[in-house]
Amino acid sequence: MRNLRLDLCYDGTRYRGWQRLPNREDTIQGKLETALSRILGEPIEVSGSGRTDAGVHARGQVANFHCESAMPPEEILQNLRRYLPEDIGIYSCKEVSPRFHARLNAREKTYCYRIWNSDAPCVFERRFVAVMSEKLDMEAMKQAAGLLLGKHDFSAFCGNNKMKKSTVRELYAIEISRRGEEIQLRFTGNGFLYNMVRIMAGTLIEVGRGQRRPEDIPDLFGGKREQAGFLAPAQGLCLEEVVY
Amino acid sequence: MRNLRLDLCYDGTRYRGWQRLPNREDTIQGKLETALSRILGEPIEVSGSGRTDAGVHARGQVANFHCESAMPPEEILQNLRRYLPEDIGIYSCKEVSPRFHARLNAREKTYCYRIWNSDAPCVFERRFVAVMSEKLDMEAMKQAAGLLLGKHDFSAFCGNNKMKKSTVRELYAIEISRRGEEIQLRFTGNGFLYNMVRIMAGTLIEVGRGQRRPEDIPDLFGGKREQAGFLAPAQGLCLEEVVY
Repeated sequence: MRNLRLDLCYDGTRYRGWQRLPNREDTIQGKLETALSRILGEPIEVSGSGRTDAGVHARGQVANFHCESAMPPEEILQNLRRYLPEDIGIYSCKEVSPRFHARLNAREKTYCYRIWNSDAPCVFERRFVAVMSEKLDMEAMKQAAGLLLGKHDFSAFCGNNKMKKSTVRELYAIEISRRGEEIQLRFTGNGFLYNMVRIMAGTLIEVGRGQRRPEDIPDLFGGKREQAGFLAPAQGLCLEEVVY
Repeated sequence: MRNLRLDLCYDGTRYRGWQRLPNREDTIQGKLETALSRILGEPIEVSGSGRTDAGVHARGQVANFHCESAMPPEEILQNLRRYLPEDIGIYSCKEVSPRFHARLNAREKTYCYRIWNSDAPCVFERRFVAVMSEKLDMEAMKQAAGLLLGKHDFSAFCGNNKMKKSTVRELYAIEISRRGEEIQLRFTGNGFLYNMVRIMAGTLIEVGRGQRRPEDIPDLFGGKREQAGFLAPAQGLCLEEVVY
């Protein structure tokens, strides 16, 4: 069996997320598997580096799949570009070691959360930002972000309350920057729990609004979901990069 | 009668262009007039700096309208933002001199034509670029662009073959630049004929493909529509700025 790696991007607006759902065509994994199975003439299962939620975008998603077919990677790439809709883009298709696994081998991921922080119109980027026009205290948000860094039990930031496995993750960096009307929150870590980035974004936004104090952040580690902030809207989130 | 100026932007994808059409709701002018007439409680006619074609975008369109209502401009702005769909954005609404006319007083306009010049996926900007993946000779295009500059009879670049008025216009600048996978053609002039920017873009693209020589450009002045290049797709075009 050959092993192939795909590097891809997608506009998640009209999808129910990465993960294939029975009898539904509107997932990224489903679209890829249907296209690849047709192109290669054999049933294909695709593993992604992680499952993005419904409405979440990706500029640097990575996936892999095994196949029997001898079709050259460049030909698979051309066929995929022909078959896939215009909101899913394939950067590359490359043959990799049989041991490569897009999810299990991911060492580091970066997500970006984009906030349109203005009353001014946001017409051209409207599908890729969350609009929040109230004033946000960037310094308080940066201080709170600093306290999220490191290895912690992020249980309070996990949207799956039946999570049986460890909720410990390590956050390497959170960059908060403003460019014109837009605020970007960029999170890098060794892995993220279900909804974790959106709950961290929601918590930092509450700090920015003055509804929460930066110094209370450490109390959340090991806590319950209700203690952390709101789930920020999916459309502002984008998976930027996966490092192996 | 008061005179008010609107500065606005729009994603032209789902519109039949600027100009109001009878019994159709999908024009920019129509949307603005319907919204303003409701907000102000009197029939409003809006003049734009120019009519953008179906599918063409604007980041810097300017319009004006007269009204009897005494509603403050800031309140009109807030109401407009509430009533208009999310693909039309109003930057500002300001009271101006009764003599200001968005079309007649425009001294200079800049349009940008965006070409996605790559096989690589263009997912996030796909509505705002024309995809042309063949190799284009940028140097030849720049040479041809230089020959378009100045005051000429642009009859060959006019999409209206029943044009009775003068087809003489003056082009002040054409900038051709590449950033990553994208080529931008930026045209500044004192005014543009119907379809003129898209026909100039099509002509420059034909030069870039080697189908036309830069030195043949001057032969087009005063010529017929068939002599110039193809009409480049609307979705790559955006009205960037109008100067008064």
